[in-house]
Amino acid sequence: MYLSKLFIPLLKENPSEAKIKSHQLMLRSGMIKQSSTGIYSWLPLGFKIMKKIEQIVREEQNKIGAQELLMPTIQSADIWKESGRYKDYGEEMLRIKDRQGKEMLYGPTNEELITEIFRASVKSYKSLPQLLYHIQWKFRDELRPRFGVMRCKEFFMKDAYSFDISDEEANKSYNKMFYAYLKTFKRLELVAIPMSAETGPIGGDLSHEFVILAETGESKIFADKRIFEIELKESNNNESIKELRKIYDQFYAVTDDKFKKDEFDKKVKKENQLITKGIEVGHIFYFGDKYSKPLKCSVDLQDGKKTNVKMGSYGIGVSRLVGAIIEAKFNNNVMKWPESISPYDVAIIPSIKKNDKLNFTKAEKIYNFLRNNNIDALLDDTEEHLSAKFKKTSSRLR
Amino acid sequence: MYLSKLFIPLLKENPSEAKIKSHQLMLRSGMIKQSSTGIYSWLPLGFKIMKKIEQIVREEQNKIGAQELLMPTIQSADIWKESGRYKDYGEEMLRIKDRQGKEMLYGPTNEELITEIFRASVKSYKSLPQLLYHIQWKFRDELRPRFGVMRCKEFFMKDAYSFDISDEEANKSYNKMFYAYLKTFKRLELVAIPMSAETGPIGGDLSHEFVILAETGESKIFADKRIFEIELKESNNNESIKELRKIYDQFYAVTDDKFKKDEFDKKVKKENQLITKGIEVGHIFYFGDKYSKPLKCSVDLQDGKKTNVKMGSYGIGVSRLVGAIIEAKFNNNVMKWPESISPYDVAIIPSIKKNDKLNFTKAEKIYNFLRNNNIDALLDDTEEHLSAKFKKTSSRLR
Repeated sequence: MYLSKLFIPLLKENPSEAKIKSHQLMLRSGMIKQSSTGIYSWLPLGFKIMKKIEQIVREEQNKIGAQELLMPTIQSADIWKESGRYKDYGEEMLRIKDRQGKEMLYGPTNEELITEIFRASVKSYKSLPQLLYHIQWKFRDELRPRFGVMRCKEFFMKDAYSFDISDEEANKSYNKMFYAYLKTFKRLELVAIPMSAETGPIGGDLSHEFVILAETGESKIFADKRIFEIELKESNNNESIKELRKIYDQFYAVTDDKFKKDEFDKKVKKENQLITKGIEVGHIFYFGDKYSKPLKCSVDLQDGKKTNVKMGSYGIGVSRLVGAIIEAKFNNNVMKWPESISPYDVAIIPSIKKNDKLNFTKAEKIYNFLRNNNIDALLDDTEEHLSAKFKKTSSRLR
Repeated sequence: MYLSKLFIPLLKENPSEAKIKSHQLMLRSGMIKQSSTGIYSWLPLGFKIMKKIEQIVREEQNKIGAQELLMPTIQSADIWKESGRYKDYGEEMLRIKDRQGKEMLYGPTNEELITEIFRASVKSYKSLPQLLYHIQWKFRDELRPRFGVMRCKEFFMKDAYSFDISDEEANKSYNKMFYAYLKTFKRLELVAIPMSAETGPIGGDLSHEFVILAETGESKIFADKRIFEIELKESNNNESIKELRKIYDQFYAVTDDKFKKDEFDKKVKKENQLITKGIEVGHIFYFGDKYSKPLKCSVDLQDGKKTNVKMGSYGIGVSRLVGAIIEAKFNNNVMKWPESISPYDVAIIPSIKKNDKLNFTKAEKIYNFLRNNNIDALLDDTEEHLSAKFKKTSSRLR
């Protein structure tokens, strides 16, 4: 791509509404444009990065045997009434009446809909376990959207759901996802720590938030800092992932809501205590028959009895990750993109003088050579001064 | 993928609401599932096909230099009031009030929003021409949704927009898209005929619907049948595409709304007259300053004057194409997928006898060989009778 052709509307000043770096840089470098409060258009540069993140998330889901499908954005209120959440969900749910007065809503999450799909299709234990996921736009009518794409109204998420016949089997599905998440974040060059999170009335230890460190994070983090040094070993069965989980479980790591000072001091030596802030980029959660029970989603077991399907849900904020990665990695006013998701592989910035096309011709030669070798290059063909070019073009690359 | 693991809920009977073949077959083969009236979930098999179509559409847009971005699904009513369409659009527009009482809507189309993005960014003729597109979910609150994914409420579309400084320049953008559309449909193994369509008050000849033949089509077609024999020649500049357009323009081809019997009889010999039905799968349309004028989207020209940007829009119904391709190609109860979008490259259907694993072992060998060579294979590992297997598995492949 020639820079002069790239649709990349730069802003010279920080927009007043942008309080954190990622929001400022994304607006200034033309990655996004606000279309209304908390709702953004993704311009070519931002879109390209988000799509690369999406693809990495997808590949790691596919690797553990999860199957991709797609649920619509607009849902009927009926299934939410069945689960009991239609009343409970509150004002963050965007409620809609269609032209015939039917109550609809823009999905803020999809447990009900996936359970409905599953119960209509699967009747026997033989079809289990099953992992299904989708990557779709969701909507939450935030009262105070802020931090750009990190807490906005319309956002892009991967949501997976697991279906098993017993808690024990569900544990295996949970472990698969636990591992897939670690792999996903590693490919994004992020150190994302699985932190024990609240499990609600179900209890147990099957709820983890994946948090990356960033000064601007909304989550306060209390951890044994050695957890950041765990090496991710390739694991391909439940036993080896169980080992991996044990290693993580050795080290204390929780967010605000699970923090207890006594416990922290008891379990973590002073010199290993880390208190800092982070951004939640993923959440995995086992909730048993919380939805399958009210929605009557059961399967026949081998012995002829029926059981409610045991479910878990597994989310990654794809659009949020774009902002979160900037927060975790920026240096001054420069965004540092991991190679796996950088918008271009190479930027060529020739010093172009008027009436002397030599450098530009050389640059074009390099550009064409790279393109012919499937290396995605950006050629700065504008006639600005070299220092201005460096500033502009390098802010778009790692 | 092993068939026993594939999430593919088959239906044995035709659902009563499904009147046409594509709707019946998509439901029966577990490609889609209705979630509420006119709104569908895309299950793994249907999703896979739709994504392949999306990718072909994307590649052909990129080839002509169009840049991909993404506008949100939920828009503010404000820009629609600016253009004057908020009142005019009628009940098909899904209107929404957010928690603060602000008037929002689910985009039925995006001329307003893309114009707003463009006017905020581009000020000079130097940045033109520009082609921008996105592939996004749209919503139209159809009173009577029918024909499955072909006339549903939530649908997936590619929409491109061109921006030029003059009618003459806009003509070149239009020609690029005209060519990209022919290429796209050719890769989908479809004969899609560009038919002159109504241009509205602007006049001229810059509006074409791309129609494929199918008995169940909603559009009545009147054509010189020789138009189906035109060969698509590789063209890489405006001159060669102009030549191509001339070839198409030689032959009469219109839909209902532009049909005049006198003209048809005068221009087309009896033996070449074809009166049939088709499905619209794409529409390209030049509308000049229809939106740029009320939305005040102008650029500075070289001579210091300003001009309203001249725009065109170019749509392809990606989700609709899944149904349309079935309609155009099915034979009896078998869907015939073009190789470029078939869900799997190869299906392996061994005859498996109880207590004799020999055939299955052979089949697995072939399966693994194919997978290692990046050939996407489906292995039917179920223990059904061979004839039942053939029926089931072959209905999913070309």
